[in-house]
Amino acid sequence: FRLFTLNSNEKLTAEIAELLNCEIGKTSVSRFSDGEIQINIQESVRGCEVYVVQSTSQPGNEHIMELLIMIDALKRASAKVINVVIPYYGYARQDRKARSREPITAKLVANLLETAGADRIITMDLHAAQIQGFFDIPVDQLIGIPILFDYFKKKELEDIIVVAPDSGGLVRARKLASRLNAPIAFIDKRRPKPNEAQVMNIVGEIEGKNAIIIDDLIDTAGTITLAANALVGKGAKTVYACCTHPVLSGPAIGRIEGSAIKELVITNTIELPKEKQIDKITTLSVAPLLADAI
Amino acid sequence: FRLFTLNSNEKLTAEIAELLNCEIGKTSVSRFSDGEIQINIQESVRGCEVYVVQSTSQPGNEHIMELLIMIDALKRASAKVINVVIPYYGYARQDRKARSREPITAKLVANLLETAGADRIITMDLHAAQIQGFFDIPVDQLIGIPILFDYFKKKELEDIIVVAPDSGGLVRARKLASRLNAPIAFIDKRRPKPNEAQVMNIVGEIEGKNAIIIDDLIDTAGTITLAANALVGKGAKTVYACCTHPVLSGPAIGRIEGSAIKELVITNTIELPKEKQIDKITTLSVAPLLADAI
Ligand SMILES: Nc1ncnc2c1ncn2[C@@H]1O[C@H](COP(=O)(O)O)[C@@H](O)[C@H]1O
Ligand SMILES: Nc1ncnc2c1ncn2[C@@H]1O[C@H](COP(=O)(O)O)[C@@H](O)[C@H]1O
Repeated sequence: FRLFTLNSNEKLTAEIAELLNCEIGKTSVSRFSDGEIQINIQESVRGCEVYVVQSTSQPGNEHIMELLIMIDALKRASAKVINVVIPYYGYARQDRKARSREPITAKLVANLLETAGADRIITMDLHAAQIQGFFDIPVDQLIGIPILFDYFKKKELEDIIVVAPDSGGLVRARKLASRLNAPIAFIDKRRPKPNEAQVMNIVGEIEGKNAIIIDDLIDTAGTITLAANALVGKGAKTVYACCTHPVLSGPAIGRIEGSAIKELVITNTIELPKEKQIDKITTLSVAPLLADAI
Repeated sequence: FRLFTLNSNEKLTAEIAELLNCEIGKTSVSRFSDGEIQINIQESVRGCEVYVVQSTSQPGNEHIMELLIMIDALKRASAKVINVVIPYYGYARQDRKARSREPITAKLVANLLETAGADRIITMDLHAAQIQGFFDIPVDQLIGIPILFDYFKKKELEDIIVVAPDSGGLVRARKLASRLNAPIAFIDKRRPKPNEAQVMNIVGEIEGKNAIIIDDLIDTAGTITLAANALVGKGAKTVYACCTHPVLSGPAIGRIEGSAIKELVITNTIELPKEKQIDKITTLSVAPLLADAI
């Protein structure tokens, strides 16, 4: 097989290559003067099983187009099987029509990947498991919880409670809780009247506990930082937060710094730019997991 | 029918709407905090014949994704026919494998548009006419030459010679020349040895003539400004340049300002940002042409 990387996750791909003891395929991925993507694969892939690593993280549209164009180039270079490794699958929150006359972009992107020539998808913690069904090709969904679990287990915390930031996250919270042998709680957000501020009701016994909030992705960090502060208000001893996908857009970093969160544990499905690497954040690598799947 | 616009050509679409005496459909096209595109169509399109106007000009990848997501939303909102008006079709220069293991992005984009749900394409001056064959749906290709011709005719210039900046542009140059009743010339670029500078040989009688260089698109303006200076060197009285698609990326504007070109005549298939609207540039509107085709 041959392993290729595009621009979103060069470091992660380098780690995977080291674990697999293989080279990264030579390509040039650049931009023409007008911003159009120029790709040239610089070694033969004829008849090869190929893996391309690219998260469709910010800038998502650029990363999607890079990936589609790379798949097209691989296909036209007669690659035998094109496996697309998408550690973070962007547009996953647009997985249904929340209002009428909206697109279902998560499905559109699935169709685009197949049209370009993808044969198989390897991804992690899809925002909704249903997205697997958007594809007509095999989709392997890997789960980040074991990596997060290992990290928290080594801390040997006592009196843990795992907290889901909303009712949709209960299944995920339960998985981590049962591994840690800990109880769970969840946060019930309600808007008493339209245009009134949301109220956070914490369902569960928090007093004196080490709370670990878990989510699949953290974007603007609004919910999670409010939740952390509410947990401290209810008597939590310390509050940890963890997620697989650190989207961390807009005000996220400032909010996390200013919040009651003691430590935020994330993975490298999305490569954090330097300015977002603050002391409170601990990054775990998914390279071993992905290397195993290749 | 219903007419919609995205972000690339709002002014052009407004002109088309005025000519057709219709409203522009209400939509909201915005960005989530992480840069993902959010589209919501704010009026019913059920059973409608729909036209969406979007050039895939810079930033091309953003504009392509906007267009694909809009088509997806229209399709899911039960539009009857989705006509996609792409005044400038980006990635058109990547229409063949110039080297091995390159993508053919112009074909990929055609496939993506069909996958999203486009039923018919209306476009202008494709870089290569073959791109029409990349689609399995009807493609109407409109031609900008009549608009450029009308403008130059009104100038009542004498002793015109129409110049193709390369041999590939001869057909286009001949079309304009025969309308203007003028002779043609072309520029034969050769690199005497690898890594030596290109030499521009002008084939045709330039002395004392008003030269009009014509191309389909002008990107970095390297060729066209060198050509203009070479024409003056050969005794041209004045040099005009014209094209349908003003890509004008990177050093283009500075080069045009500093060149022998007296006036550059373009169309609004690509909306020029303010900082590129210099005195030497005259913009003609393709709105009447597109309105006719709708
Ligand atoms: N990139 C995004 N950022 C924020 N919200 C989004 C994004 N994409 C989709 N959404 C919205 O998020 C909601 C779905 O999120 P969820 O309920 O967590 O599955 C829908 O209302 C979407 O319109
Ligand atoms: N956006 C672009 N900017 C500059 N050159 C391009 C672009 N897209 C493709 N090309 C190259 O332009 C050449 C084709 O241009 P042409 O000979 O004018 O059809 C090919 O070698 C392409 O690799």
